[in-house]
Amino acid sequence: MSVETGKKLWGGRFEKPTAPIMERIGESISFDKRLYSQDIRGSVVHAKNLHKIGVITREELDSVIKGLQQVKEEIEKNQLPFRQELEDIHMHVESRLIELIGETGKKLHTGRSRNDQIALDVRLYIRDEISIILQLIINLLETFYNRAKENIDTVMPGYTHLQVAQPVRVSHYLMSYFWAFLRDKKQFEFTLGVNDELVLGSGALAGVNYPTDRELIAKELDFSSISENSIDSVSQRDHVLNFLFACSQLMLHASRICEEIIIFSSQEFRFISLPDSLSTGSSIMPQKKNPDIAELIRGKTGRVIANLNNLMILLKGIPLAYNRDLQEDKISLFDSVDQVKIALEGLTAMVQEMKFHPENMQSSLEIGFATATDLADYLVNIIKIPFREAHELVGKLVSVCNSKNKTLYSIDVEDRKKISEFFVGDKYFEAISLLKSTDKKLTYGSTSKERQLEQLEKAKMILDLI
Amino acid sequence: MSVETGKKLWGGRFEKPTAPIMERIGESISFDKRLYSQDIRGSVVHAKNLHKIGVITREELDSVIKGLQQVKEEIEKNQLPFRQELEDIHMHVESRLIELIGETGKKLHTGRSRNDQIALDVRLYIRDEISIILQLIINLLETFYNRAKENIDTVMPGYTHLQVAQPVRVSHYLMSYFWAFLRDKKQFEFTLGVNDELVLGSGALAGVNYPTDRELIAKELDFSSISENSIDSVSQRDHVLNFLFACSQLMLHASRICEEIIIFSSQEFRFISLPDSLSTGSSIMPQKKNPDIAELIRGKTGRVIANLNNLMILLKGIPLAYNRDLQEDKISLFDSVDQVKIALEGLTAMVQEMKFHPENMQSSLEIGFATATDLADYLVNIIKIPFREAHELVGKLVSVCNSKNKTLYSIDVEDRKKISEFFVGDKYFEAISLLKSTDKKLTYGSTSKERQLEQLEKAKMILDLI
Amino acid sequence: MSVETGKKLWGGRFEKPTAPIMERIGESISFDKRLYSQDIRGSVVHAKNLHKIGVITREELDSVIKGLQQVKEEIEKNQLPFRQELEDIHMHVESRLIELIGETGKKLHTGRSRNDQIALDVRLYIRDEISIILQLIINLLETFYNRAKENIDTVMPGYTHLQVAQPVRVSHYLMSYFWAFLRDKKQFEFTLGVNDELVLGSGALAGVNYPTDRELIAKELDFSSISENSIDSVSQRDHVLNFLFACSQLMLHASRICEEIIIFSSQEFRFISLPDSLSTGSSIMPQKKNPDIAELIRGKTGRVIANLNNLMILLKGIPLAYNRDLQEDKISLFDSVDQVKIALEGLTAMVQEMKFHPENMQSSLEIGFATATDLADYLVNIIKIPFREAHELVGKLVSVCNSKNKTLYSIDVEDRKKISEFFVGDKYFEAISLLKSTDKKLTYGSTSKERQLEQLEKAKMILDLI
Amino acid sequence: MSVETGKKLWGGRFEKPTAPIMERIGESISFDKRLYSQDIRGSVVHAKNLHKIGVITREELDSVIKGLQQVKEEIEKNQLPFRQELEDIHMHVESRLIELIGETGKKLHTGRSRNDQIALDVRLYIRDEISIILQLIINLLETFYNRAKENIDTVMPGYTHLQVAQPVRVSHYLMSYFWAFLRDKKQFEFTLGVNDELVLGSGALAGVNYPTDRELIAKELDFSSISENSIDSVSQRDHVLNFLFACSQLMLHASRICEEIIIFSSQEFRFISLPDSLSTGSSIMPQKKNPDIAELIRGKTGRVIANLNNLMILLKGIPLAYNRDLQEDKISLFDSVDQVKIALEGLTAMVQEMKFHPENMQSSLEIGFATATDLADYLVNIIKIPFREAHELVGKLVSVCNSKNKTLYSIDVEDRKKISEFFVGDKYFEAISLLKSTDKKLTYGSTSKERQLEQLEKAKMILDLI
Repeated sequence: MSVETGKKLWGGRFEKPTAPIMERIGESISFDKRLYSQDIRGSVVHAKNLHKIGVITREELDSVIKGLQQVKEEIEKNQLPFRQELEDIHMHVESRLIELIGETGKKLHTGRSRNDQIALDVRLYIRDEISIILQLIINLLETFYNRAKENIDTVMPGYTHLQVAQPVRVSHYLMSYFWAFLRDKKQFEFTLGVNDELVLGSGALAGVNYPTDRELIAKELDFSSISENSIDSVSQRDHVLNFLFACSQLMLHASRICEEIIIFSSQEFRFISLPDSLSTGSSIMPQKKNPDIAELIRGKTGRVIANLNNLMILLKGIPLAYNRDLQEDKISLFDSVDQVKIALEGLTAMVQEMKFHPENMQSSLEIGFATATDLADYLVNIIKIPFREAHELVGKLVSVCNSKNKTLYSIDVEDRKKISEFFVGDKYFEAISLLKSTDKKLTYGSTSKERQLEQLEKAKMILDLI
Repeated sequence: MSVETGKKLWGGRFEKPTAPIMERIGESISFDKRLYSQDIRGSVVHAKNLHKIGVITREELDSVIKGLQQVKEEIEKNQLPFRQELEDIHMHVESRLIELIGETGKKLHTGRSRNDQIALDVRLYIRDEISIILQLIINLLETFYNRAKENIDTVMPGYTHLQVAQPVRVSHYLMSYFWAFLRDKKQFEFTLGVNDELVLGSGALAGVNYPTDRELIAKELDFSSISENSIDSVSQRDHVLNFLFACSQLMLHASRICEEIIIFSSQEFRFISLPDSLSTGSSIMPQKKNPDIAELIRGKTGRVIANLNNLMILLKGIPLAYNRDLQEDKISLFDSVDQVKIALEGLTAMVQEMKFHPENMQSSLEIGFATATDLADYLVNIIKIPFREAHELVGKLVSVCNSKNKTLYSIDVEDRKKISEFFVGDKYFEAISLLKSTDKKLTYGSTSKERQLEQLEKAKMILDLI
Repeated sequence: MSVETGKKLWGGRFEKPTAPIMERIGESISFDKRLYSQDIRGSVVHAKNLHKIGVITREELDSVIKGLQQVKEEIEKNQLPFRQELEDIHMHVESRLIELIGETGKKLHTGRSRNDQIALDVRLYIRDEISIILQLIINLLETFYNRAKENIDTVMPGYTHLQVAQPVRVSHYLMSYFWAFLRDKKQFEFTLGVNDELVLGSGALAGVNYPTDRELIAKELDFSSISENSIDSVSQRDHVLNFLFACSQLMLHASRICEEIIIFSSQEFRFISLPDSLSTGSSIMPQKKNPDIAELIRGKTGRVIANLNNLMILLKGIPLAYNRDLQEDKISLFDSVDQVKIALEGLTAMVQEMKFHPENMQSSLEIGFATATDLADYLVNIIKIPFREAHELVGKLVSVCNSKNKTLYSIDVEDRKKISEFFVGDKYFEAISLLKSTDKKLTYGSTSKERQLEQLEKAKMILDLI
Repeated sequence: MSVETGKKLWGGRFEKPTAPIMERIGESISFDKRLYSQDIRGSVVHAKNLHKIGVITREELDSVIKGLQQVKEEIEKNQLPFRQELEDIHMHVESRLIELIGETGKKLHTGRSRNDQIALDVRLYIRDEISIILQLIINLLETFYNRAKENIDTVMPGYTHLQVAQPVRVSHYLMSYFWAFLRDKKQFEFTLGVNDELVLGSGALAGVNYPTDRELIAKELDFSSISENSIDSVSQRDHVLNFLFACSQLMLHASRICEEIIIFSSQEFRFISLPDSLSTGSSIMPQKKNPDIAELIRGKTGRVIANLNNLMILLKGIPLAYNRDLQEDKISLFDSVDQVKIALEGLTAMVQEMKFHPENMQSSLEIGFATATDLADYLVNIIKIPFREAHELVGKLVSVCNSKNKTLYSIDVEDRKKISEFFVGDKYFEAISLLKSTDKKLTYGSTSKERQLEQLEKAKMILDLI
């Protein structure tokens, strides 16, 4: 709404005022106020361009910049009231600017449309937020690295199907997430590249009737490229999609380790415990110590995935160029930013603080026959029994253990002998040794100490280069 | 946090205070404050039960009720500050109550867990909101009915594949949405039934150690049934899923008519125009009059569908009973409530206010050969040519018309004769009459005036019974 | 494609043949062949109507019915080759009918469009499949009921946050799913109602130019109502949405019990074991016995939810009436049908066959302080200590137990006394008794034996009435 | 199932045979048979490694390779029957190999798990399919480029809100999609990088007990890196997620141009027409020529988005490492591959073949006041009226035109004068010239001929470098 006339900025051909429902459904200030600093940053540079191409004088430019700076301060001090009828952040900034500096303020919209203005703001915002998120990811990576290094000599069960599979070093387990979140880092960096395009100068859709110097603007705003097609620039949201996808992938990784934190801190597993400061209790049950952060992050995963889903549904089948549907893209964007940041903080705190209980891991390894594969491999490699047969013999031994409630370590030698003459003596015990099992894994990326040290070294190099 | 001790209500076994990240990620007061009136309504009845089973005296009950009433008023007057460390709406209400009435306030949590408390609040909330939504749907249904009745004698093209298919009455078109939104009404009513179950008394999950009179509570809170299994009661969210599904289905209907409003108000179609009060202009392009409400509703559809998606993802694979993930269910719920309500208002306003342009509809009918099927039917029914052959002859006529840029009305008789000797004379023109076409449709539910009157009458009966 | 002429049935105005890409992208026979029996059932009744309204003679009707019967047999015997250029199941049936009975066959399409024909077929299909699914749900409900009844006297930990919360009877746990799947049954029954509408007679969109007797057709095909608006009839897919939602809700329930089966059959929990016949092993690890069915069902949940998401995205923003996008609705529908049926079978088999291990449940109850709440309630109710204080005292006791690696049963009396003078003697042990805990829960729906018997009785009544 | 013994390969500890439901729900051969060539390619290289590390002799290697080659041929000739009890493609290949070459065949599984085997197969498959998809994208890009070049001098309305906004060159419109699909190309290339990691050698999860030469395998299979962590290698599906995201983004672009093709080929717009070969008719309505391909692609968009949604839901909250849920990832993957490829073909055909109708575009430009902004800019730049005032004057002129059913070209000079003295003479007509409007857009990326030529040149350079 124009400050002076009480009419919308676009009111020329309109004879009747906007209906309340139109204002209520159309306003975006309730959420796009978050973009105020990006909007003002973009406007300052746009003003510089207007000066360069002769639309405003040096004095006018100074006045605009000073005015915008004041608007920014007022917003930061909560002195600028947000009003539904001023629709969006652009209108709020512009109308306050006009109040402050008068007629000159009206020239700021020259050569610019809200379509390319909002497109610019969002790109600046995404860039700002990715830089924060990247730092949070780095914190998490360092935490995984440090905890892995500390726990290289602790052996825990590796699971498939949530059944004990094979012994793995805790470092191996923790580092599996290091690489996952490192991929997330790369995904956000790729998004940064997709996002890195100056779109201002696209006008409503066809370009603008002024010799806007897009190179200048790009340089001032630190964009390394300029969008090629003005229709595409105001219509597409691929950078937002990319961002929301990166968020979703990250949250999926987070949801998986959170699931494990939840399971591993159950009384039945008790592989880890979280500190009091990161747990909650129950208002009813005095014994409860719940891994709420892990549950909340797991729960937020749906939200972040749904945000991607939302924008995809929104974009499906809408014609070029700008449609008002696109206003809603920010809802998803802002929420995913918030959820991902808090999830990264919560996860880092848990990984940092969680305490491991090797004695319980040991117990699971034993009751889970974690070295059954090693025993079979011993039959194959030393005794030269074909693998399928070895597999079957060990399977039978496990079966007998289970029926007698024994482990590979506690089952009677007589019972072993009945199944195979090779299930006796030191070689048998060496074959099923938990300690030795991990080091029998020879391949690059495996759980042996040598491979783990190698992996940690590689991770260190990567962290050092960041 | 306990008001007096500065410790969380569940702090007994906890030696260290909650970390800031735990408080920030765990708080729900920023969104569940919306449930304050439901929470207090439930607490009042819970207190009555506590009195009935002898936990509190008559005086204590009076004090609790009076205190809760005051808390409610304070919240409504924005006098109660919301604080992150008090986590949720339950804690805010309870701690304020204790401040107001002292020790007695502490007894209110007897025989209740936050798990069944929040489950109750949400059910009360859903019931409250559905009753508002149902009224908004009824307004929309009446609007469709009224506009249909007004426009029964206007003929417009019916489309398939966005190609002109057959002439239909505007009433027929409008009523197609009447029946769609009537289904939404039934869907919300079904949800109301799913939701209509008293869950309080389920405790944390196993029931409570007090002889809570669930029948009494159900009666006081107007629930017609009592949940059968306390574990299920605190774990499941089927009523929320149902609600979110009903919202999604409704928004899909809305998205389709909005798409048509957008297309029909393009300069090329110009079948309808929206009033200035429900349109927006462009800050750049003086001629623009945009159907923003329709676009916004279409855009919000993704959001509402994604809310359903969110809750489904959240629920997938989480074990019973309560998990903290479930706290996030309200984000989706509240947002869908807001979007559906504003979409219904926006849609009703547009349907109410939109103006039809029969002359443009007529023009489309002609250039779209809307009565080609009628012409084929004439060949079949009167001339007794097999349908497939008739179809082919008319197809050829259309093809010639197109190549000569003519309509069925303007094409030369010589051109017609070349294709079929029956394409001549009055019978030909009667066969292709737009006016007569609709009335040739004989089946129940079809576009003839008789059938339309019948349909309107049926709709009237339904509306009268609501 | 017309059998005789080599031209598509709609080829009149078309001068050039269909491109291969058009045929490949447009064909639906690869999936809609599944509808053959519904298509033929509908055609038989449509033919009866054509006879009744005088379009075909009695002899023609007999010939059509006989011909259709033969086509059906040929399809069932895999004697009818499916060909991409014949597009869909309707064309296959019709063209084969014409081959078999000649000219009369061509009359079958009179007064019918593929738009209302496919709409009918899908409704018949959904009805058929729901009836199968309902039976599978009933089997599952009976299984839950029977296993619950058998295990009413076994106590297991009830969980919140996957931390031991309170003791519950296994019957209580199992019955929590009984009620969940009973809601699914009601959801499918509601869908059956939404689906129960005769749409044939809607034509392409506007109705048909014949006095089709829709009441007759509805009666013959056992529909209890007739769709009110022909445009809506061919455009909307609410019954499919409803069906896909019901499938999703059911799979969410399934995913949750599957998650528990997976966790409960881990070596660390060992609450249950699945029989060999419902487990798989590993080609590498001889000890593995994996709960693959549970994992597969949990995995299929995403697929079924995504099918709902798919149809919602498809429907978003498409104008009325029929658009070719709608052809794709069947992909989602058919897949969800398959997944839900196999998931129900798999789940029923697991619930039926799984063996409980009460000794491990007992051990978890002890190490999980499952009766800590009971101890607090004892302080409140017998000793008359305020609840918040009682909660705190028990919390401290748990804390000491944990630090000394003891349970409430094994912790020294001296340690107990230090915290509270009431933590001594028989009353203490009675308060923490696992056996007695469940029966202290008094509310309807709770875990006490009395309430469980009541619940089983109610379930029995419901099952008897099915 | 072992070919000889009739027992599963993992049957050692299993005493009872697999239940039919286990086989039916667990089988993947019905869909993973598609991976046969990747599976065999991987096995050949795995065999080479086994030879290198001394597990098999040169002769055994030759026998394995020859055997595998024969299995491949048999599959390609449909000579190998697929059987549910042999579960998956790995078992089919292995069991047939053993039939063909005997005992040696059994050694092939040494040092390999189905977990890393399937992970490898899928990566090979994704790489193969991306290379096909990239070529299809290039075809489409070239088509856009060529059609744009041909149509640089045709002016059409550019739309915002589906209202005529400003004149744009058809080249500008078409090239907006060129850049969108070029981003898709980059997205698939990024996915190729994410996918480019050798995972074989990870074993079940912990690595393998053999000195597998992963560098050798990587080189032979043309992977440029080796996965760093064996747990992560068998657990994560980020490359599949990335692929499904790239597919979704592409389909969203496709859905938008398809929407426009549908709208632009309506009788009301008639901006374009598709050839008969890419259209379909109606079995009922002889005049219909429907843009079915565009509708089908728009419809398939939901399916491809849902495939991404599916995998995300599947992955949410499942613990490491391999879980059987992961088997279902291929359903989504295979379907998205199929849909994207056929959509690209269909879209390319339409863009290639569609005919433009400039006369109808011209008419829309006129009735849509497409140069209203130019008129305002003229007032601002030449007459030096402030922009907001100029906007208002033009708005009023548009309003008068509308009320008198005139365009900017046909409205009386007297009416113009009443609004502004500057709305007269040659300058007025020059300001509103459609031909000149586009060239007034000066910015890089805009619609002027100069900028279009520049853009086409840039595109040419890119295409030349591919």
